[in-house]
Amino acid sequence: MDIERISKQIGFIAEIDKLKKIIRQTSLADASRQENVAEHSWHIAVSALILSEYANEELQVNRVIKMLLIHDLVEIYAGDTFLYDDVDKAEKYNLERDAAQKIFSLLPEDQGDFYLELWLEFEEMKTPEAKFAKAVDHLQPLLLAFQNEGWSWKKHDLQKEQVLERKEPMRYGSEKLWEYAKAMLDEAEENGYFPER
Amino acid sequence: MDIERISKQIGFIAEIDKLKKIIRQTSLADASRQENVAEHSWHIAVSALILSEYANEELQVNRVIKMLLIHDLVEIYAGDTFLYDDVDKAEKYNLERDAAQKIFSLLPEDQGDFYLELWLEFEEMKTPEAKFAKAVDHLQPLLLAFQNEGWSWKKHDLQKEQVLERKEPMRYGSEKLWEYAKAMLDEAEENGYFPER
Repeated sequence: MDIERISKQIGFIAEIDKLKKIIRQTSLADASRQENVAEHSWHIAVSALILSEYANEELQVNRVIKMLLIHDLVEIYAGDTFLYDDVDKAEKYNLERDAAQKIFSLLPEDQGDFYLELWLEFEEMKTPEAKFAKAVDHLQPLLLAFQNEGWSWKKHDLQKEQVLERKEPMRYGSEKLWEYAKAMLDEAEENGYFPER
Repeated sequence: MDIERISKQIGFIAEIDKLKKIIRQTSLADASRQENVAEHSWHIAVSALILSEYANEELQVNRVIKMLLIHDLVEIYAGDTFLYDDVDKAEKYNLERDAAQKIFSLLPEDQGDFYLELWLEFEEMKTPEAKFAKAVDHLQPLLLAFQNEGWSWKKHDLQKEQVLERKEPMRYGSEKLWEYAKAMLDEAEENGYFPER
């Protein structure tokens, strides 16, 4: 056994434990507490397994799963950005790319290169896998918000139009999931899950 | 779009959110709080991706990942059992099998059957994928316990011999990871991470 190699791999596995402490702006379905990024990553990976039949294009679902399991690791160093915050996109990208280089460089070079490439592929949103991964990543917080009757929409004073605008990139990965999401947002509005205007 | 089908799938995704509220006996690497089963599932899935080269037998790593992502869903209904607790194994198995039938029956039949089979395969620990998945599932809490200097070993008054005995099934999936784990436990003992006798 190559001790240097396995030590790097185990060091990486120990380091990524920190993702469990990065808190998102969405809350659990029962609104009992905010979600952390590790459990979010698990939830979207399972969601992608279950929903892959709705992808616009043929794809390798296993690559989608790998992408979803690792794409948020950058938040260990760069923090979580709320989808609805106004941020400088180039600045955010540079910060996260540096974070990706930092986290994946803990791995042996062959693995570090592979996961850095996979992370970049997700960010560029050009391949069928990246587009579908993004669609699922967008859908899951909507489902939670619907379940908890708009907890995060009310907390952050978000109206349906703002949610629709930010979530529209879902359609590049899955027109069907985007249709489903829009119908769900209509129902949420009827049910009074958005804050009063 | 088949509305009945997607409604079942979305219902399943909403239901499994509850896994984030099932608390394990292990704590995070920094000992700040106990780990929940959803974040544990994410951590072992990533660990399996990184460590698959150490499996005893050739295997399909993507099947391992799927297994690890879903195998603990039964704990939503059956609860988490601490590895070191004395439990009636047949009773635990029956309880968890019933829970598996309950959770996977939320899915459309083709998907429900697939994941129930995958869950049973993990439990039976006969295929290379199931044996390796079990090895990684055993290794991750050891890594956390090493990082937090034996938090759960001290809390539950566990000595190295007990840990070795319960973790030995690791070797059926990966002799190399088992060797690594034994060396780590020796170092943990030298460092005083086990409770005083």
